[in-house]
Amino acid sequence: MTTLRTIDWRDGDIVIVDQTALPHELKMLLIHTPEELVDAIRRLAVRGAMALGVAGAFGVALAAARASERGDAIDRAIDAAASLLIGARPTAVNLAWGVERARSARAGGPDGVLAAALAVRDVDIEANYAIGRRGAALLVGRRRVLTHCNAGALAAVEQGTALAVIGALHQMGELDLVYACETRPLLQGARLTTWELARMGVAHRLIVDGAAAGLIVGGQVDAVVVGADRIAANWDVANKVGTLAHALAARRAGIPFVVAAPESTIDPATARGDDIEIEERDGREVLGFGGVLTSPAGTIAANPAFDVTPADLVSAIVTERRTITPSGAPARAIASLV
Amino acid sequence: MTTLRTIDWRDGDIVIVDQTALPHELKMLLIHTPEELVDAIRRLAVRGAMALGVAGAFGVALAAARASERGDAIDRAIDAAASLLIGARPTAVNLAWGVERARSARAGGPDGVLAAALAVRDVDIEANYAIGRRGAALLVGRRRVLTHCNAGALAAVEQGTALAVIGALHQMGELDLVYACETRPLLQGARLTTWELARMGVAHRLIVDGAAAGLIVGGQVDAVVVGADRIAANWDVANKVGTLAHALAARRAGIPFVVAAPESTIDPATARGDDIEIEERDGREVLGFGGVLTSPAGTIAANPAFDVTPADLVSAIVTERRTITPSGAPARAIASLV
Repeated sequence: MTTLRTIDWRDGDIVIVDQTALPHELKMLLIHTPEELVDAIRRLAVRGAMALGVAGAFGVALAAARASERGDAIDRAIDAAASLLIGARPTAVNLAWGVERARSARAGGPDGVLAAALAVRDVDIEANYAIGRRGAALLVGRRRVLTHCNAGALAAVEQGTALAVIGALHQMGELDLVYACETRPLLQGARLTTWELARMGVAHRLIVDGAAAGLIVGGQVDAVVVGADRIAANWDVANKVGTLAHALAARRAGIPFVVAAPESTIDPATARGDDIEIEERDGREVLGFGGVLTSPAGTIAANPAFDVTPADLVSAIVTERRTITPSGAPARAIASLV
Repeated sequence: MTTLRTIDWRDGDIVIVDQTALPHELKMLLIHTPEELVDAIRRLAVRGAMALGVAGAFGVALAAARASERGDAIDRAIDAAASLLIGARPTAVNLAWGVERARSARAGGPDGVLAAALAVRDVDIEANYAIGRRGAALLVGRRRVLTHCNAGALAAVEQGTALAVIGALHQMGELDLVYACETRPLLQGARLTTWELARMGVAHRLIVDGAAAGLIVGGQVDAVVVGADRIAANWDVANKVGTLAHALAARRAGIPFVVAAPESTIDPATARGDDIEIEERDGREVLGFGGVLTSPAGTIAANPAFDVTPADLVSAIVTERRTITPSGAPARAIASLV
């Protein structure tokens, strides 16, 4: 399979895979201004923790480049873009992190900012491969894996996090089947994860989110692997809404619940899960689908985009540098992780 | 609000509310033969444990009436219809129960069978009111309730089970808010429960199924109330897929998980949940949404229609006759139920 970069820099612009067009069309978007990028982030054309980190950094580079072309004050343009970008997805800590990484290089002018942004991209690519190798080593022998949402290449630059683990297991010949949860309301699992698994040649079954607990408790799943949007200092994990139920089921079944995420997802400034702001998205995402209203006119929805899995339900957090076991159990003793 | 009968007998035919047309249209279907009824059951135009019990009984009455009109052997027609009907939804124990109730009156001819079927209907209506009163008495003080799928009037003849409890709480002025889970893949919650709650004047929020655990564990829900499709002799509960995750979350949060169901749902012949056959439905229900394919072409889905909540997660089962606490705790001590 060809390696695909979900987000990249090309001749002064950002190029992204438009994820709203998948799985039916692989469409690339050229983004010329920070405002266009904010729009793409808001409508989830680009999404996922690591991709958002790179997007944040590239967005600052874009602001610097455009200001320089216009002869405007570069610092002011960078600050304005940074505020806009960080506000586009308030729960995604990587977005703010990427913005700050590029902004901190402002003394070097547009070229310095761009170099910093490109470094964010390259470090992320390397980190994903490292996460995949580390997670797979931990899960050898767990041949049926369940994942939620899309923590794949499409959520990063290449490879992804949870799907990097799954990809590495597959490369090792250690994987029989992946259950991909569709991930309502926006169906990132149905649209994106299945698309990536098919590209990878991994056998998989698509399920509704509510089917996961029955399969897990019924003994049909050997491990749950998910990504993370933000990890608090006490190891509470914020991830796509629906994740917590899988963690509860994994605990009930006595199988590992593993979070695969880059170090940049860990936010030492957030003491615990309760301190994480949960983005409430537009209720229309819940009230219907693809423009078709499924609920009665006038129905009000609640639409939290994330939930928080308490640290005690997390068997391990695998990053590019280390394996964290919130319980304090030795990382290599997988049986003790559950 | 006008009382609506989801299924009834009118001048030799069955009349049902066509639930595939809701919530946008209230359409009644006239059903003249057992084969038409089997078709309506299969495509979920009529659904829900209690409604299926009445449908099974009425279906046998229909077979007897049609055979009598044609001058055919009534017993043979009843047996043929009974097999067809029971096979239409193998997990739904009430369907088989209703069929057998009517069939057991075959010695009385078509009139005897019809009288037995009408009795099933009337007993069910009374049972629903009794379930509502009993469940509400148990849950007084629990002002924010979460429910799954549709266990309302549309799943019964009138009132329903879980929604009868919610309706009774509402009548008592004891209810602030109901969270209705949309219930993928067929969205009975989004389409039907919201429609019923609006008719009842109950404040509610529609959520995706995956959002329930976060709301429950986050302290925004005071009780979970669901119906049941089959209850085993050890009190394991089979209900619409997605239910188990809510039970796990309720246990984690220390709130009651209450099952509202008629006695006919209890199947003494099924020793435990593992013995319950879980209906695997067409994968196309998962692969798309409202006729729109959302996953890549060629994707394979797993689509179990039910899951099993182990008895130890069930705080109470409320029937028309009694309150069962699988833990053995006193039914009135709600605090000890969790």
